[in-house]
Amino acid sequence: MGEDPTPTDPWETLRTLARGSEVELSTSDGITYHGTLVPSHDLSGDRIVQIKLASGYNVGVRVGRADRLTVYPAAPTAPSNGPPAKALGSRPKYAKSWVALLTTGGTIASRVDYRTGGVRPVKDEAEILSFYPFLDRDGPVHVVPVFDHLSEQILPEDWALLSEKVAEMFREGARGVVVTHGTDTMHYTAAALSFALEELPGPVVLVGAQRSPDRPSSDGSPNLLAATEVARNSDLGEVVVVMHSGLSDTSFAIHRATRVRKMHSSRRDAFQSRNGPPLGVLQEKTLKLRSGYRARGTGPVRVDSRLDPRGGLLWFYPGMPPEKAKEFCSGLRGVILAGTGLGHLHTAHLPWIREAVGRGVFMGMTTQCLEGSADPFVYATGRELLRCGVTYLGDLLPETAYVKLLFGLGRFDSAGPLRSFMLEDRAGEFEARHPSVAAP
Amino acid sequence: MGEDPTPTDPWETLRTLARGSEVELSTSDGITYHGTLVPSHDLSGDRIVQIKLASGYNVGVRVGRADRLTVYPAAPTAPSNGPPAKALGSRPKYAKSWVALLTTGGTIASRVDYRTGGVRPVKDEAEILSFYPFLDRDGPVHVVPVFDHLSEQILPEDWALLSEKVAEMFREGARGVVVTHGTDTMHYTAAALSFALEELPGPVVLVGAQRSPDRPSSDGSPNLLAATEVARNSDLGEVVVVMHSGLSDTSFAIHRATRVRKMHSSRRDAFQSRNGPPLGVLQEKTLKLRSGYRARGTGPVRVDSRLDPRGGLLWFYPGMPPEKAKEFCSGLRGVILAGTGLGHLHTAHLPWIREAVGRGVFMGMTTQCLEGSADPFVYATGRELLRCGVTYLGDLLPETAYVKLLFGLGRFDSAGPLRSFMLEDRAGEFEARHPSVAAP
Repeated sequence: MGEDPTPTDPWETLRTLARGSEVELSTSDGITYHGTLVPSHDLSGDRIVQIKLASGYNVGVRVGRADRLTVYPAAPTAPSNGPPAKALGSRPKYAKSWVALLTTGGTIASRVDYRTGGVRPVKDEAEILSFYPFLDRDGPVHVVPVFDHLSEQILPEDWALLSEKVAEMFREGARGVVVTHGTDTMHYTAAALSFALEELPGPVVLVGAQRSPDRPSSDGSPNLLAATEVARNSDLGEVVVVMHSGLSDTSFAIHRATRVRKMHSSRRDAFQSRNGPPLGVLQEKTLKLRSGYRARGTGPVRVDSRLDPRGGLLWFYPGMPPEKAKEFCSGLRGVILAGTGLGHLHTAHLPWIREAVGRGVFMGMTTQCLEGSADPFVYATGRELLRCGVTYLGDLLPETAYVKLLFGLGRFDSAGPLRSFMLEDRAGEFEARHPSVAAP
Repeated sequence: MGEDPTPTDPWETLRTLARGSEVELSTSDGITYHGTLVPSHDLSGDRIVQIKLASGYNVGVRVGRADRLTVYPAAPTAPSNGPPAKALGSRPKYAKSWVALLTTGGTIASRVDYRTGGVRPVKDEAEILSFYPFLDRDGPVHVVPVFDHLSEQILPEDWALLSEKVAEMFREGARGVVVTHGTDTMHYTAAALSFALEELPGPVVLVGAQRSPDRPSSDGSPNLLAATEVARNSDLGEVVVVMHSGLSDTSFAIHRATRVRKMHSSRRDAFQSRNGPPLGVLQEKTLKLRSGYRARGTGPVRVDSRLDPRGGLLWFYPGMPPEKAKEFCSGLRGVILAGTGLGHLHTAHLPWIREAVGRGVFMGMTTQCLEGSADPFVYATGRELLRCGVTYLGDLLPETAYVKLLFGLGRFDSAGPLRSFMLEDRAGEFEARHPSVAAP
């Protein structure tokens, strides 16, 4: 053959390279991959390498013995493979505006355990950063780990802690705050930050990933870059969720925190604004906000993280025994009901609800349809529930209503002020129309 | 003036006409309305008349003294204003194929009470029929009232009764069965009929209305005509929901009963198939079904309406106290969990779930995202729940899973056969992919 009789196996070279190294691999299929190496220790032996492309996507490539490998020298000042973001400890007083990145765990900070096939949180902060080498390409990003929970493990007390941390970042001068979060309960936490924080001088952007960062097709990196972009450059003074908006790699939706819900278990465009369009979009680096957004305040940020976990959320279904529902709600100071349609329950539930309201328990009605409003004035059942003292919460999402309730319970001891708080638009949580505060 | 000095006030004539009369009213605005009169007793005095147009829509018109009214003579054989459908009692043995119309209550059989502003069920069968004069335009329709409940009042025992009635209609030779139903819980009842009935020789079509039939813009009549069309002319041998599919007056979606959910509290296109397109569409009287539908069987229809109401449905939320969840599930033989994301809960719930499974309680996992699948193999939490004995139910909707569970509990005493039943595709309830029956 005319080829070099003993070519170096590119796999042997790849194994020695540090993660983050810039490489170009041309395979025998005629495809050339240019990007940075992503750690994939567990795969060693398979001859599969993970390369993060400029788009932020990872691709897994099987390395052939005859593939051509080019290794680029490290160029620390180039934005395309700049150094990883700075870790907490020696916090520099950045000359230019900086973005705080608070990590809480979740897929976006998880990796595949190839022995079990499952996904586990990454414990090591440096390892998180190695997945996202482009993070500070447009300016400094300051990483602060807050906790490390898969999002189904997050409790209301974690919302309180996180809201204090966000406020601290703004007090220290952050231009915006990004919060990486597991997607399962991200909309609950986002709503919580909305109710805890006021006078925000910049955006608080929650972001997650539906696939872990060391896997091909991970959405973590593009999402995180988009979130950082929104935190740094948008005029928002509210809490939002930024995630992929569809099939395009470069389109992201900016959802108001109180109006969004995870509507698919695995798709990367799982997050959807309900009852209206998203607050904005980020497309090909162009940021557009619809009218009605809350602009950056002049500060200082205010935080009120008091909450009382003695609130509940109960979804009605045909055949739900009233005595079970009553039992579930005993000892609680407030309950959000997710009724059917416009906010209905079987009338066999009326006695225990009336009795609970009589004891001062707040009973709020939302719709399990998850779109449209709860409205007591259309059907007889709604009127009866109203007469029992149930407060109809318009188009407040059941989950948002539950989160708001815990903060309301933390701030108010008596039914009147709590009810006013629940019906008042605090953080854009009412979209379609404002519920009428009609007396029962 | 050149006009007749004492013209008859058309309002006086309209008040004397029987409902269902064919009229044409030309107003001073230059608009001519041609249709049949709809009863609107409560409005008398307002000079507002309700006319049902050929599209099936009602329009409310204020009658001016100078409006021109034409009253058409009754033409009982003309399809456009044929006699109302026949009532039960003297049931004729129809020469041509007939459709059974079972009424259960709900908006489609409700009217506005103008004193209270609310909507109440119509008690009188003749009154229901007067709203839908076009019902038997394409062939005989046989009306059978089964019960009269707003749908939030419907209980599992009603599902059993209704399934027996549907089977009876097919045994008597019905070509298809239409069930009018309140929309709030229509998807629960539809799923119930799917699991109770087998070897269906024709379609069972559930249909409802989002606005009552005596109001302008009611969707009841077009929906009912579409449902009757599907019941009579489609090749379906399964249970479906037929409702408006969007903004067009002439487009209807045919949803598989086990894959549909009410996703808006008030819009007329509130019903949406999840995880896939509807089973079919009816557009401008053209019926299209996608591949994979179940065709009419040769019969005889089989019905197994046994169910055990000792099943529950529990939606998880952050901060849900494990002891409350445990309490809610005590005494139940099976529970459907609506977990976050791929089917997760806070791990503090593991002990009570493990203990319940140990006592033989069926614990099934679905996703509260309402799209995508529950999958235990991606995250550590899923694997732990699997080890506790939780059965992951793929993309079964939480509500469908709950309904299926009650029928499973009615048929099986022990955990093994029940679990197999829950994982087996009985009525097209698994759409995206079939859950793996992996041993814990």
